[in-house]
Amino acid sequence: MNNADTYLKKVAVLIDSVLENLLPSETVYPTSIHTLMRYSTFAGGKRVRPALVMAAHEACGGKFGDEMAILAGAALEMFHTFSLIHDDLPCMDDDDFRRGKPTAHRAFTEALAVLGGDALCIFAFECLAKTGRTDLIAEIAQALGTHGMLGGQVVDIESENKPIDRQTIEYIHKNKTAALIRASLRAGAMLAQASDEELAHISAYGNAVGLAFQVVDDILDEEGTTEQLGKDAGSDRAKGKATFPAVVGIPESKKYAAELITRATAEAAYFGKRGELLKDLANFIRDRVS
Amino acid sequence: MNNADTYLKKVAVLIDSVLENLLPSETVYPTSIHTLMRYSTFAGGKRVRPALVMAAHEACGGKFGDEMAILAGAALEMFHTFSLIHDDLPCMDDDDFRRGKPTAHRAFTEALAVLGGDALCIFAFECLAKTGRTDLIAEIAQALGTHGMLGGQVVDIESENKPIDRQTIEYIHKNKTAALIRASLRAGAMLAQASDEELAHISAYGNAVGLAFQVVDDILDEEGTTEQLGKDAGSDRAKGKATFPAVVGIPESKKYAAELITRATAEAAYFGKRGELLKDLANFIRDRVS
Repeated sequence: MNNADTYLKKVAVLIDSVLENLLPSETVYPTSIHTLMRYSTFAGGKRVRPALVMAAHEACGGKFGDEMAILAGAALEMFHTFSLIHDDLPCMDDDDFRRGKPTAHRAFTEALAVLGGDALCIFAFECLAKTGRTDLIAEIAQALGTHGMLGGQVVDIESENKPIDRQTIEYIHKNKTAALIRASLRAGAMLAQASDEELAHISAYGNAVGLAFQVVDDILDEEGTTEQLGKDAGSDRAKGKATFPAVVGIPESKKYAAELITRATAEAAYFGKRGELLKDLANFIRDRVS
Repeated sequence: MNNADTYLKKVAVLIDSVLENLLPSETVYPTSIHTLMRYSTFAGGKRVRPALVMAAHEACGGKFGDEMAILAGAALEMFHTFSLIHDDLPCMDDDDFRRGKPTAHRAFTEALAVLGGDALCIFAFECLAKTGRTDLIAEIAQALGTHGMLGGQVVDIESENKPIDRQTIEYIHKNKTAALIRASLRAGAMLAQASDEELAHISAYGNAVGLAFQVVDDILDEEGTTEQLGKDAGSDRAKGKATFPAVVGIPESKKYAAELITRATAEAAYFGKRGELLKDLANFIRDRVS
């Protein structure tokens, strides 16, 4: 097991216990929405965004286990879960399974999936407020909004079953996926009181690693097995989704992913020994199987 | 025209011009979601929540036109619009018209209505962050979440076509409607650096006026004309929605609304001359026709 694997597992244990304490219990009225919030949050995510918050925090001199970084990490995981729940809805990607489990609207109802997604988003802002940092809230809100994740989702949905160019697929991936990954890293850096120069390197690392993450995801969708993916292989293509391999082919996609990871590790090198983990996480993103 | 009418019109002009400047232009990519956000935001709301923010701000010694109070008012209107867009979705109340215009998912698509609602919610938090007040963000997030508005929506949806008791309808109305109205008032008071005693009176006023608002809405749904309502009269009842008149009858509903308004005006009296506007707004809520 390499450093990234160990770190992700360590962060996952920590974040899961914090989410366990933060989220309202399933027995709290109205029980259905609280049950859904927990069902989707604990559906087996690898907690990559919290790990990036904490790794960037450490790279900028923060201590592992810092309460505010953990809180921000938990909030970012909830924002991510909110986006998955709404993304899976029948009027969006219409997915029945995620990570091998029925999606929220299949396990509960469509109405509850809409409201449960809303609730995770709003609760994540409530948790972020505990950091006392409105700059952090603005940063993450921008990454989530129409100039970030939601903008990417709109263009993704509107590009279905249409021929698209490289510029459009880059826009979709940069916004739909990379924006929140970059914001996770910047949030960690900001909580460690990073200098402008440190923040600039963290941002450049985030741009590269965020885009690589989605390009690798697209490649996996083409080449992975159903068992690895927790969903049917090739399901994005079957749905007419815009993917990197569909636009530029598999070999060019792999080449681009490798380039992006090289760029990310070069940025991580700025932080010297404290940036080792960021380098390992970038390599993990290149090598991951699901 | 009484004080409340004049004030609401004055606030609406101000808030509309602020929302006009805040919201991304319809020409900004991706244009569809920005067009939807503006379509729903400028669909003819009376801007009651911003007026309550500003009236509470003035009651606690704030000045009319204070930049932060206006910003909070604009954010609260966007949160309200987000809730209406998601509430109208086919999987929720399945409404085709609101204020006489096609609902967002009818004028655009269902996917865009989900994402556009999300975007207004997230953008409203981004605007709130500009106040620099995380206490305000926490206050409003709590009012919107599962112990507030969303909790009310869940129980509302789950109570459709079921016999419900007075306790349940009170829960729905207190959470679905009153929680955000109360938070609007508290936000205004907090921005005016209200004392604990002032905040307690504003909260009590908000509890009464928020609940009255929804009880009056239910009565109007039964007694108003289609022209007054911008939707079919009796449409809530036709859909098997839980309403106050359905549970306790029209006479008891009117009696209860009057009691709540009396309670609200008593709380407004605490603020003396500065609370006149709150009293007038409470009477407006009792007397409004749509």
